[in-house]
Amino acid sequence: MVERATIETIAKHEGQEVELRGWLFNKRSSGKLVFLQLRDGTGFMQCVMFKNDFTPEVFEAAKHAPQESSLIVCGTVRADARSKIGFELSVNRFELLHAAEEYPITPKEHGTGFLMDHRHLWIRSRLQHAVLRVRASVIRAIRDYFDNNGFLLVDTPIFTPAACEGTTTLFETKYFEQMAYLTQSGQLYNEANAMAFGKVYCFGPTFRAEKSKTRRHLTEFWMVEPEMAFCDLDENMRVAEDFLVYVVSRVLDERKIELEALERDTAPLERVQKPFHRLHYSDAIRKLNELGSDISWGDDFGGDDETILTQQYDRPVMVHRYPAACKAFYMKKDPEDPRLSMSVDVLAPEGYGEIVGGGQREESLENLMAEVEKHQLPREAFEWYFDLRRYGSVPHAGFGLGVERTVTWLCGIRHVRETIAFPRMLERLTP
Amino acid sequence: MVERATIETIAKHEGQEVELRGWLFNKRSSGKLVFLQLRDGTGFMQCVMFKNDFTPEVFEAAKHAPQESSLIVCGTVRADARSKIGFELSVNRFELLHAAEEYPITPKEHGTGFLMDHRHLWIRSRLQHAVLRVRASVIRAIRDYFDNNGFLLVDTPIFTPAACEGTTTLFETKYFEQMAYLTQSGQLYNEANAMAFGKVYCFGPTFRAEKSKTRRHLTEFWMVEPEMAFCDLDENMRVAEDFLVYVVSRVLDERKIELEALERDTAPLERVQKPFHRLHYSDAIRKLNELGSDISWGDDFGGDDETILTQQYDRPVMVHRYPAACKAFYMKKDPEDPRLSMSVDVLAPEGYGEIVGGGQREESLENLMAEVEKHQLPREAFEWYFDLRRYGSVPHAGFGLGVERTVTWLCGIRHVRETIAFPRMLERLTP
Repeated sequence: MVERATIETIAKHEGQEVELRGWLFNKRSSGKLVFLQLRDGTGFMQCVMFKNDFTPEVFEAAKHAPQESSLIVCGTVRADARSKIGFELSVNRFELLHAAEEYPITPKEHGTGFLMDHRHLWIRSRLQHAVLRVRASVIRAIRDYFDNNGFLLVDTPIFTPAACEGTTTLFETKYFEQMAYLTQSGQLYNEANAMAFGKVYCFGPTFRAEKSKTRRHLTEFWMVEPEMAFCDLDENMRVAEDFLVYVVSRVLDERKIELEALERDTAPLERVQKPFHRLHYSDAIRKLNELGSDISWGDDFGGDDETILTQQYDRPVMVHRYPAACKAFYMKKDPEDPRLSMSVDVLAPEGYGEIVGGGQREESLENLMAEVEKHQLPREAFEWYFDLRRYGSVPHAGFGLGVERTVTWLCGIRHVRETIAFPRMLERLTP
Repeated sequence: MVERATIETIAKHEGQEVELRGWLFNKRSSGKLVFLQLRDGTGFMQCVMFKNDFTPEVFEAAKHAPQESSLIVCGTVRADARSKIGFELSVNRFELLHAAEEYPITPKEHGTGFLMDHRHLWIRSRLQHAVLRVRASVIRAIRDYFDNNGFLLVDTPIFTPAACEGTTTLFETKYFEQMAYLTQSGQLYNEANAMAFGKVYCFGPTFRAEKSKTRRHLTEFWMVEPEMAFCDLDENMRVAEDFLVYVVSRVLDERKIELEALERDTAPLERVQKPFHRLHYSDAIRKLNELGSDISWGDDFGGDDETILTQQYDRPVMVHRYPAACKAFYMKKDPEDPRLSMSVDVLAPEGYGEIVGGGQREESLENLMAEVEKHQLPREAFEWYFDLRRYGSVPHAGFGLGVERTVTWLCGIRHVRETIAFPRMLERLTP
């Protein structure tokens, strides 16, 4: 019996006979030859059939097999310098499993709306396939980093009871006799977990009911959020930096073929090395004004500001100590200037902007209670959160990284919607 | 400067001076000695202070430090045969960071309601801590298994457009101008992904609005679902078996201290080896009747049936070919008896019951359409799913494993609610 192989690991079968199972991605023929472009889910490979090696029926079946038909082929793996993967298959057996109906996605240009309506098929296409394989590597690298650096995965809940920070961007659902809200961040729970486990991370889907139709917004997206007990802002920045360098280098190692298919210039990614630039918020404002932005001290950055700023640097920039008014109530104030917070955003280069947001949390019960009052939040809903400052409060910090924005940057594409298999947006809930 | 260490990896610091940061879990004193039980999130360790080594103020502060106060201690790591972790710390520096208020969870017995109301603190307790560390290992092992065996992680959406299989157990949310439903399974999307990537898995939270108040139900729980193109029921069973053996052995390796804290008898877990018992549904019914159950051919198993059946075996049992009527519409029929489906459930031993459900999917467009009609499902909502049978249909199969039920079994505890940091149940949405 012939060994079953996959295209991703075909190199180890050089010279051997193997069986491949997959789908017909494309083909061409020239008299005595048929060139089948096979995809098996792990990669794309050319499979060559010589007329003389087959009965006329089989050769004709191969020649006329419709796009996306399912196939089983056997043959010998041969090195081929013209191939992107370095090998092709000399076919000696061809079996058509299922002849596809006429495939809706043709080599001609389709509009994004049409392609998104056919997302369940579009993900078979070479570029979409590449993006989603990069995504899998990003997620794997994220988990490996935290698992290998003493963090414990502790999942935080999706259903949350109170609309703590205003309901405008929350999805709500009837939860038996009450209302529940879908989480926007595991932050508060993460802090409880850090007090129990030291260094933790949560990693799951989060939800924002924003009516934004921009290339940076999804209603459902994945976020990883590490949180560390006994950690200050400086240490938090060191971890974020070390973490990002690791993730980028893993993707560069594992996804060469995919980044090439995406025509991603990898030089800017190779420059993602320590140390990142560190920029105090006040210095960032000064710099932005020099560069022509009319931003004022106290303002949060707009997307344009992030773009202008990151274009000045060859690697990510960490802007720290944003005005407290721009950040969440639980952020610790800067002891040197209480108008500022002990926060940090990491801005990706090449104009991609914010991919990480985080900071040191307020550990004083008194200050935290005052903030809850100042923000007119329902104090009762935070009693359990206050407990974390009543029983062994410690300095702690953490951050969140959005998976889709990170993948968008690493793939060098424009819109986040292609970085998740079935994106959910303001006007997109199907398929 | 003294190196900072964690209790989990304290063995590598034997004889060295280290710094530990954590919380006071318990303490006792006897004249010239104070024994501090320190927890740092990674483990529990005894730290010993001799009166003569400290100023009276510091020694008194240690002696009277309230439970769950946060501490920094420095000292020398010494082997100690009486210690569960094999080491204790001879303290030479003690710093009280934050003196806790009176801690609500005392060594006395508390009711589960009280403890669940204080879940953000209860997770600091030794047994809860152990369970959640087992959970993290289970999740890590699951991901490693699939990542290392050619599966690609492809996340499936949480928001789904149609209430495909009845709305009674679905949570719904207003999605701008439409309604969306929270996913109960990534199954349908997984199949699209398998046709694009070959072998895939999704792993995320899933939701069931069941009004069940049993020890096996959560409204929000995590499920991993692998799906394989070019795979039949037999191969699916082999993968499920291989996968489970791997996960159990990883947990046994990594979580010795935690399983010991839980007083888990690990002998039954060590017997989780290939091959598992395979039992045809009809044989299972016969066996159950012999054992005194009044179940009839055609019935689905009740919890009691699973308990009785699994108590007959020393390792997991795979029951295959349940009646089609008990399973989802997309399950392939048994070619040898169309009343049956090509399904499999894996039942955990020791009475724990179903932890895996899966099977081979219907790959014929015609049969699938007939099933959708028979189940009176809205055909239009399934057009995209039908496409998977129009364009290169292939035999495919997969399964789902519930994380919380698996952790319950491995920890040998009674109720799923302790296997997730912040459980969500019929009457529990807080903290």
